[in-house]
Amino acid sequence: MQEISWQDEHIRKGFAAIGQTSPFVYGLTNYIAANLSANVLLAVGAGPAIGAASDWTRTFPAGAGGVWINTAGLMSSSEESFTEVARTAQAAGTPWVLDPVAVGAGAAEYDAFVKSLLQYRPSIIRGNASELIALGGGAALGKGVETTASSSDAVGAIVEIAKATGAVVAVSGPVDYITDGTTTVAVPGGDARLTRVTGAGCSLGAFAAAALAAGNEPLLAAQVAHAAYAAAAERAGARTKGTGEFAVALVDELSLLSA
Amino acid sequence: MQEISWQDEHIRKGFAAIGQTSPFVYGLTNYIAANLSANVLLAVGAGPAIGAASDWTRTFPAGAGGVWINTAGLMSSSEESFTEVARTAQAAGTPWVLDPVAVGAGAAEYDAFVKSLLQYRPSIIRGNASELIALGGGAALGKGVETTASSSDAVGAIVEIAKATGAVVAVSGPVDYITDGTTTVAVPGGDARLTRVTGAGCSLGAFAAAALAAGNEPLLAAQVAHAAYAAAAERAGARTKGTGEFAVALVDELSLLSA
Amino acid sequence: MQEISWQDEHIRKGFAAIGQTSPFVYGLTNYIAANLSANVLLAVGAGPAIGAASDWTRTFPAGAGGVWINTAGLMSSSEESFTEVARTAQAAGTPWVLDPVAVGAGAAEYDAFVKSLLQYRPSIIRGNASELIALGGGAALGKGVETTASSSDAVGAIVEIAKATGAVVAVSGPVDYITDGTTTVAVPGGDARLTRVTGAGCSLGAFAAAALAAGNEPLLAAQVAHAAYAAAAERAGARTKGTGEFAVALVDELSLLSA
Repeated sequence: MQEISWQDEHIRKGFAAIGQTSPFVYGLTNYIAANLSANVLLAVGAGPAIGAASDWTRTFPAGAGGVWINTAGLMSSSEESFTEVARTAQAAGTPWVLDPVAVGAGAAEYDAFVKSLLQYRPSIIRGNASELIALGGGAALGKGVETTASSSDAVGAIVEIAKATGAVVAVSGPVDYITDGTTTVAVPGGDARLTRVTGAGCSLGAFAAAALAAGNEPLLAAQVAHAAYAAAAERAGARTKGTGEFAVALVDELSLLSA
Repeated sequence: MQEISWQDEHIRKGFAAIGQTSPFVYGLTNYIAANLSANVLLAVGAGPAIGAASDWTRTFPAGAGGVWINTAGLMSSSEESFTEVARTAQAAGTPWVLDPVAVGAGAAEYDAFVKSLLQYRPSIIRGNASELIALGGGAALGKGVETTASSSDAVGAIVEIAKATGAVVAVSGPVDYITDGTTTVAVPGGDARLTRVTGAGCSLGAFAAAALAAGNEPLLAAQVAHAAYAAAAERAGARTKGTGEFAVALVDELSLLSA
Repeated sequence: MQEISWQDEHIRKGFAAIGQTSPFVYGLTNYIAANLSANVLLAVGAGPAIGAASDWTRTFPAGAGGVWINTAGLMSSSEESFTEVARTAQAAGTPWVLDPVAVGAGAAEYDAFVKSLLQYRPSIIRGNASELIALGGGAALGKGVETTASSSDAVGAIVEIAKATGAVVAVSGPVDYITDGTTTVAVPGGDARLTRVTGAGCSLGAFAAAALAAGNEPLLAAQVAHAAYAAAAERAGARTKGTGEFAVALVDELSLLSA
């Protein structure tokens, strides 16, 4: 399997497109991850807006260059608003990212709603191993929003999901894997503390939407986001010890990547 | 046009009043900015409460010394709760700040609701250039919550809004401008990274409410908040490189301003 | 009165159990404190999920090892969802923590709802002095979410509440006090800046739920959380000046406590 990294020319070029186009990226997400997600987007050069405020759900998905939907956002917005954002994005031709947080963790109604969004054809689906194994029909159960499986366990599942949905599918873990159902690449690196910073995975989904909004095809957009995130995490990890400073340094390093 | 700064005696005196009175400041805001807004208020010596929990909307605006309303908070609370807070603040004589996030960005129903709050007579209205040009009836469109215009482009608009509403109006940008419709002052300084920290503008609106709550008149209160913010941002900018550490240092420097 | 601290063997042992069991902890909380609360839980080795998303409220309280309910979360979720989480936790035998934020601050309907949750028998109740004096039937009024009384003023009230409810009750302040109605211990230390970091108290309630989830009895679990928090706050305080860096260092030091 091919390995990709921040050192690769095509990754840096795809990343630079975000800063060059300053795309407007709109998302529905949960309020735990919303602040970090917006700061990650601002750090990499995108202009984020978040939330189902009034008719934003009907207007922003069409005006945005990319959209992300993190279904844990159901904690403060209605299913209707999620469906409207997904449907409007599809109708407007705005590429969008689905982040099915905690799918497969035991909440059957929630899981069913998450799966109903697949009909609006996300360009990228991202999650952790437990979530993607569950989304692929497997039995692995998450523990709340945490995974109990490793990313390498999910490679078969992500290929299946990609084939079934037409989306690029990316799983986060010690090594990230990204596939369009035919080509699968590995993104090594990062830092184990990414699993101890709340919203770090959710923010990666937002980042992938920014990479799409900058004009990258889904397979490249996912690679750009994952490889840049891994590089920033490594740099952040090298200069911090605990998880508090690591989280701050992660945003910091993302904002300095383009320099 | 007169320039004001943190070096000015009347600004420092107006700021010191916050620490001396520890005012209770209540706000409705969006969940992206809520954490930073509360930390900014605590840093400058105020006691914040945020959110439309149960009958807080009917009781806290009257008990508070100042209120701020950030309309992007419609993402998790009803229009009724926003109207109730604005109406109750006006009825109780509690001065309040309106922050019309993303007005003019293309969501017509949202925009109409934002404008409906003007009937409850905010003491201060703050925003970025695109928002205030749109609120003043101009055609400039924002890109989500980001501005596509510079603050100097909005000086005419803020004077018009001040005359029409009786509020003090403040626009954030490379230079901030504040007007009561007759006197207009400029607040230079700050740091360009303020536009790359989510909620930095929203938190400035909260800060202005704290300055009101400490007993400052609206024109002074807005100046106190903007000038202190600019000074803290400059100090934070001088000791950090990326946006992650800048955001932390901004709160840090605000908490150290009084010392 | 006995004083306990992070130096005590039984405290360290109770804390180590969290890292050893990595318990799933589920909470409903307010969106101001949600991010910090999740990061505190991840720092100490627990796996958090937060929010009333779809049927999470019916399924997660049973699957979790511990639950916490911060009633300020009513700002974005319904009373029904709070009641459902409390009732489901009790029915499943999942120990849970009640954090009655701002009770007694003047919002009578809110206060009545908070008290209605006592029927589901929380294992631990935590708050600041004003909140617990009010919960115990006293007249002391908070100023929004801030206390106007000192923790030592609340010792009588927490003993009364413990006797009346069967819960362990903990009050935060310059010295924290924890009681089961019979035994009362004091936890000195910490840092005054804890009162200037939004959500610091809320996150301590989440931490107590993690200590419960790791199998500690309520009286020990509350001591573990409060003593570890005080130690981390002292270490964070020793290496920072302002409130921004202190907040980051607090999470950092919690993540390094086990090392």
